[in-house]
Order: sequence, then C-alpha cells, then structure tokens
Amino acid sequence: MVINKNAIVKILCAVMALVGLSMLLPLFVSLYYREFRVAHCFGVCAVPVILLGLLGIKFLPKQDNSILRMRDGFFIVASTWIVMSLIGCIPFVISGAIPRFADAFFETVSGFTTTGSSILSEIQSLPKGILFWRSFTHWLGGMGVLVLTIALLPMLGIGGQKIMRAETTGPTMDKISFTINSGARGLYIVYAAMTLVEIVLLMLCGLDLFDASTHAFGTMGTGGFSTYNASIGAFQNLPAEIVITVFMVLAGVNFNLYYSAVAGKSFAPFRDPEFKTYIAIVIGAMVFITAMLTVHKTYSGFGESLRMSSFTVGSIISSTGYAITDFEVWPEVCKLSVLILMFIGGCGGSTAGGLKVIRCMVLVKLIRRNVKKRLSPRTVTAVKVGGKAVSEDTLNGIVAHIGLYALLCVFGTFIISLTGVDNITSFTSIVTCLSNIGPGFGMIGPTENFGFYSDFIKYLLSIYMIAGRLEMFTIVILFTRDFWDKKR
Amino acid sequence: MVINKNAIVKILCAVMALVGLSMLLPLFVSLYYREFRVAHCFGVCAVPVILLGLLGIKFLPKQDNSILRMRDGFFIVASTWIVMSLIGCIPFVISGAIPRFADAFFETVSGFTTTGSSILSEIQSLPKGILFWRSFTHWLGGMGVLVLTIALLPMLGIGGQKIMRAETTGPTMDKISFTINSGARGLYIVYAAMTLVEIVLLMLCGLDLFDASTHAFGTMGTGGFSTYNASIGAFQNLPAEIVITVFMVLAGVNFNLYYSAVAGKSFAPFRDPEFKTYIAIVIGAMVFITAMLTVHKTYSGFGESLRMSSFTVGSIISSTGYAITDFEVWPEVCKLSVLILMFIGGCGGSTAGGLKVIRCMVLVKLIRRNVKKRLSPRTVTAVKVGGKAVSEDTLNGIVAHIGLYALLCVFGTFIISLTGVDNITSFTSIVTCLSNIGPGFGMIGPTENFGFYSDFIKYLLSIYMIAGRLEMFTIVILFTRDFWDKKR
Repeated sequence: MVINKNAIVKILCAVMALVGLSMLLPLFVSLYYREFRVAHCFGVCAVPVILLGLLGIKFLPKQDNSILRMRDGFFIVASTWIVMSLIGCIPFVISGAIPRFADAFFETVSGFTTTGSSILSEIQSLPKGILFWRSFTHWLGGMGVLVLTIALLPMLGIGGQKIMRAETTGPTMDKISFTINSGARGLYIVYAAMTLVEIVLLMLCGLDLFDASTHAFGTMGTGGFSTYNASIGAFQNLPAEIVITVFMVLAGVNFNLYYSAVAGKSFAPFRDPEFKTYIAIVIGAMVFITAMLTVHKTYSGFGESLRMSSFTVGSIISSTGYAITDFEVWPEVCKLSVLILMFIGGCGGSTAGGLKVIRCMVLVKLIRRNVKKRLSPRTVTAVKVGGKAVSEDTLNGIVAHIGLYALLCVFGTFIISLTGVDNITSFTSIVTCLSNIGPGFGMIGPTENFGFYSDFIKYLLSIYMIAGRLEMFTIVILFTRDFWDKKR
Repeated sequence: MVINKNAIVKILCAVMALVGLSMLLPLFVSLYYREFRVAHCFGVCAVPVILLGLLGIKFLPKQDNSILRMRDGFFIVASTWIVMSLIGCIPFVISGAIPRFADAFFETVSGFTTTGSSILSEIQSLPKGILFWRSFTHWLGGMGVLVLTIALLPMLGIGGQKIMRAETTGPTMDKISFTINSGARGLYIVYAAMTLVEIVLLMLCGLDLFDASTHAFGTMGTGGFSTYNASIGAFQNLPAEIVITVFMVLAGVNFNLYYSAVAGKSFAPFRDPEFKTYIAIVIGAMVFITAMLTVHKTYSGFGESLRMSSFTVGSIISSTGYAITDFEVWPEVCKLSVLILMFIGGCGGSTAGGLKVIRCMVLVKLIRRNVKKRLSPRTVTAVKVGGKAVSEDTLNGIVAHIGLYALLCVFGTFIISLTGVDNITSFTSIVTCLSNIGPGFGMIGPTENFGFYSDFIKYLLSIYMIAGRLEMFTIVILFTRDFWDKKR
C-alpha cells in the first residue's frame, strides 16, 4: 500500500469536523446581522460536515499513529490544506457570494494559506457573515501554519528554522507521531492573545467590533483580506493604520520568541540574529522608501510619505498584503524595493510567507564564505549564524529551497505567459502566490484583483499558494515518481 | 607588500604590447580604405603603447613567476581586462568616432568582454578602420576568455568547468605559474581555424571580405558588434544568417571538445552531458518559439517564424547578441523564453556568457536530490553529472556562483533604478551585461542602445561586463577587505 489510507482518512475527518465547527462563528455573525439566508447556507454546510467528521472519528477503526511514515506525513499535510479549502469554499458558492467554484476555491485557498489574493472586485457589498468567514479563514490558516512550521514540517525535515532553535523541532525519524506538544498549545495562546489585544486597540481607534476583529484576523494570520474595497485605506484612520502596521510587523516575527517570554523563559529577541536582521530590514526599507517618496514628491509631504511607506513595508515584508495606497504609482526604485521585500518575507516560525529572513541570511553568508575561500582555498570555515555553525546538511537544504523557489517561479510564469498575460503580471502573480503575500504588479496590483484569470490559472495559482504555505517540498514531493512507488 | 607589484607591471606591459600590436591590423585596414586620418590615430596610439610595453618587458627586473600568489593572480586577471580596455578605447576617442571617454570605455569593455552592448545609435557611417577595430576587440577578447576560463581561472579555483574535465584544469596551488600550456595553444589554433572557415563561408554567401571578417570576429567571440545599424538584418541574406546561426551555436560549445578532436583524441561530443543538454535546449527553444510565433502570426508564415526564432535562439543562448528582428514585438511567452536563455548561456569552456549550462544542470540535480532526501532522509546520494559524482566542494562553489549572480543582479538593478529608469530596462541591462550578451528589453532592446545612460551607470555596467566575463569572483574579491589585508 502506498499510503496509510485509514489513518489519513481519520485525520482528515478531524480536520473536517474542525472546519465545520469553525463555520458556527460566521453563522452566529450572520444571525446577529439578520442575514438569515446566509446563516442558512452556513448551517446547511456546517451540520453535515461536522456530523460526517465526527462519525469518521468515532467509527473508523482505531489507528496507531506511530505507524505513520514520512510519506503519510507529506500526504496528510498537503491534503489537510486541500480538504479545508474544498469545504471552506462551500458557503461562498451556495450563498451566491462567489457562485463560480474555481473562484470560490481560489478565494478560500487564498484565505487558509493567508495569502490574501482575491478574485473579488466588489467586496464591501457582500453579506457580513460571508466577509467574516473570509477573514476568519486567515486566522485559522495562520494558526495551522504555526503548528505546521514549528512542529510538523521540521519533523518531516522541511524548513530551515531548526538551525536556529533546535529545542522546538521534533526529531527527524522515519516514523513520526502527530502529537501536538505543549509548546504548540502555548503558541495558540500567544496567537489568540495577540489577536485579542489588536481587536481591543483597533476598537479604541474607533473601529466597530466587526471591522476590528476581521482586520485583526487578517493581520495576525498575515493574510490581507479586508472587508472594504479600498482595504485599510477605507478607514482613513491614522491610529488604526499604526496599530495594524505594528501588528503586521509583529506577526512576521518568530512566534517562539513570544512563547519563550510567556513560558517564563528569558525574552531576549535582540539576541536572535534573525530578529535583528528582520527589524533592520523593516526600518531600513521604511527609511529608504520614505526618503525616495519625499524626494520624488509622490505624496504631499514627508508625513504622508512616512505613513504610506511604513504601512506598505510592514504589509509586504510580513506578506500580509493590506493596502492604504497603490504602490504601483511609486518611483521605480521603490517598486523594486517592494519586490525585494516580497522575496525576503518574514522570519521563520511566523505566519509570514516568502523565502524567510533566515534563509536569505544563510545564502549571503554562504556566498561570502565562498568569496573568502577563493583567497585561502585551504581554510575550512563553517557558515555561522549567531555564533553557531550551520551544518552542511542544513545549508544544502536551504540552497535547494531557494533554488526550488526560483525554478517554480520560472515554471509558473512560463505557464501563465502562455495565456498571453504580460510577464510582469504573470511573474508577480506567481511570486505573490508562492510567497503568500496578496497583491503584485501590473494587472494584479494593490487596486486590482485576480478575477480575470482563466479557471485553469486560478487552480494553478491555488496550488502555488498551498505549495508556498507548505514550504514547497511538501507539495513538490507529491509530484515525484518516488512518492508513488509502491515498492518503497 | 599586498601584491607582487613588479611582476604584475611586467605582465601588464606584455598585455600593452599585445594590444598595441593588434592595432596594426585596423591601421592597415584604414590605409587600404584610404582613411588616412584614422590610420594616423591608430599609429599615434599603437606606436607608444608598443614601445612602452616592450621597454617594460625588457628593462624591468627579471621576475620569477613562481613567486606569484593567488591574490596576484586575481589582480592580474582583473587588471588585464581593464588595461586592455583603457588602451583599446584610445583610437575611438582621438579619431572622434566616440569622442566621450565614458562612452568609448564602455564600448571597448563591451568589445573585449564579448558582450556587444553598444552606446552607438549610428554605426555604419563610421570609418572602416574603426569598425574593424571594434569587431576585432571581440575576437581578441574571445581568445583571452578561452585561456582564461580553460587555463587560468580554474587555477584560481574559479569556475565550475573543472568538474567535467579535470584533465584541462591546472592544479589548485597557493603559488601559481602563468605558463600557458600547449593545450591553450591548441585552442588558439581551433579558434582561428573556425574563424577562417566562417569568413570563407560568409564570402561564399556573397559578403565582402570586410563584412565577412568583422562578423566572423563577432560570432566566434560571441560578441555581437555589427558594422550595420540593423545588425545581421541589414544583409537580408538567408544563407549568411544560417552560417552565422550555426557558428553562434558552435561558439557556445566547450572548446575542449573541438581541441580533443584536433589533438587526435576521440571526438565524442554526445558523450558530454553538458553538450547534449545545450543542444537539447537550443533545439527545444527553436521549436517552441517557432510554434508560438506561427500560432500568434507574428510573421508572415512558418518559414519566417523558423528563421527569426532559430537565429535569435542561437544569438541569445550563445550570448552573441546579433539580431535580424526585434524580439520585443514577440508574444510574452517568447520574450520570457529569451530571458530564460539569457540566464542559462552557453557551455563552460566556451566564449559564451551566462550562468553556463553545466551550472544550471547541477542546480537542478541538487534540488532533485533534496526532494528525494525528504522522502528517505538517511539515504546519502551524490549529485552526478554524466555518471560522475560532483564533489560537495564543487557543488558549494556552483551554488555560491548562482547566488552571487542573483545578488549582483538585484544590487545592480537597484542602483540603476535609483536614476529613475524603469525596472525592466535596468534589470535586463544588468543581466545582459553580467551575462555578456548585448541586447536586453525595454529601452535597451535589440533596436536600441545604451547611449542614454549617465556616465556613472556606463562605468557601473562596464564593471559588470568585466565581472561577468571573469566569472564574478575575480572582481568581487577585489572589493573585499581580506584581499587588501597587508598581514595576510
């Protein structure tokens, strides 16, 4: 047998039940706003999903999770995101909010992967329950990503985070156990608490509970779905923008740092080299872009330039994708800076996407080591991050990660450009989806949407969003012959 | 003492004398075409340069070349290209053909590095002697590149070619000797013979000796300077286009393969995995682009599409840069294909630029190994090319090379975009210079030129062309503190 079918079905049933239960919250929101038709849709979807899920958990033969092998792990992680999205898009379709399946699937994948790319041109006229569910997928997705990147993927040998914090990564074994340790529970608490703080702060800035919570979901999950066509720009509320900027940047930080603080261990983020670099990049980019916008007189003055630049830098590096302005009208060098931030992304162990700061740091150090080596070929020096040597194996993994990212970008851009779309649009569509950011350049800029793409491209981009979320290898492996080789 | 000054000055004197002597050829061409003023300019430049060079060789204290260390090697290789360009641009300036120094320097660097990017908008009205010299720099540069990449750089530990053909690489020692072995002499003979064959074939196609030789220089050096504004398109001569296409593709092949044939060893190019991949990419790209051009009806029919596609693919992958059409009017996916070919480049050990096919192959294999490793973490597999395992050290070098290429692209694009130039133009300017190709997209497309750039950017691009030609590390090392550290 290729994969451990029974155990996988059982786990997917649990996922189903969880997604179904999550739909009860938008159901209540719909009821509160007297959108009875929408509430009915959520109910029609949630009840059978919950029942099926619970029945599966209860009546499927009891499984010993220890018999799960590596390849089962990959299959489970990948199919979890697909099953979540397949179920999650039902309310959009049956409520008529997004009648076309390909569109609804794209939107839901974009939600759960915390990408934030949308096919909708008209957002704010949708029912409140639907808007709530749309934002809530970000929050759920972000939660899933935290467990995934901090607890599950390292067990499968994916992700370069482990180099920095071996204490949180599980052992790399052929047989893995999916017990979520107490560390992951701690992360949930931090994540929920930060969301709550942001909601309160946003309400103090004058937002109502609905706006505050939906946008807090989008921020903490680094998603980017707004409930307004003009995104955060709709509020014209400077204090709220500042709160969201700060929380976007915070959401791009490794959650282990927060957890250490809560767990009573020392809270010393500035001893973390990735955190220091991340903050340096954020501040550097904000200062540089502000200066450029001021010099080019893109906005009315220094204040406006600082506002637009800070928000956008926070939004892009954390891969959130909220907007208060259209960066496509910025000077060329600012647009390029935005593109570079898209590639870099946030810290490992956060809900942010992109290559991750730690991988970029290691790549630069690897190049520097090679330059030095040409001068003194006999000197053997390890690549060090924060004083600790990075193993050659981890280096190899990081290099392959960045290389695979580049290959997938080229491949995806090629496929989209076959349909006649200009290369800037196709390239940044692929980058924004693979990095789980949201907006791009050209026809998918901050004021545009993905609605014009054909169904085929929407599915392709959906796969890219999931691949990006699962650090690529998890999805790419499913396309190899070795994975499906029955003899192995 | 940081570097071995006397020995270096002596070697540079030899380079001076060689460049001076090379100028006698365009001097005779000028005399033949009765351009006495231009001939005078060549004489005024060549005579003192030759004298100074010879005097330096004769009267500077005799040096033991074995005392040259690694860092002297880097310095010599880099300064050779700079000295060549500084002397080579004098005739352009004093004849008034390119009066501005920054322009003349750019044009000469572009010639010697076999890039073929030009700042000239009006070419064909220039004196014949000047045009001959301009094309001849390609041929000389190509010759220098062959020694460099096959004999010198591997001694300095640069370039990934050695993995395939250890027999032609010198030993990696701290103290290196600059004796050109008999192998390099054999390469010169092959290079010269192929040039001669192309000249004869082009003359059979109806070109006169001047056109045939200048364009053969540009082809064999994979340079791309033409003597006509419309490049090869000016001839409207299909047989000549076919000859040039074939020789462009041939010039992108590892010259060791030709040398083996001449030296009486077995000629088995299809046992060389890089050659096979190179030919597969060339044919694949030609077929694909022809199909796309036909489907999109970009040209009048299949025949024209095949003609335009074949020539352009040969021109771009070999980094020559000759044009018979403007690929900027092609469909998006064809433009993207051209950009991808620009990155790949020709084979190692050829006069072509770009990343080189062998490096791209190794990168793909490295990624594939990592994908497999996720499934079976305990299996240790070497990356193999042509059945031979590539050492981890070489892998590391290739990865650092590609990473450095990407970093330099980002850095250069950033600097140019600061001047307000659009990102497509700045990015492809950097790529085309670093890969020594010639044309790019946007304001530097096949029908445009680099004249509009400021002097600062022209110098930056000149450094990029030299860096690209010298496999980057040779130039980057000069910018490190370690290199100039007196204690080492």
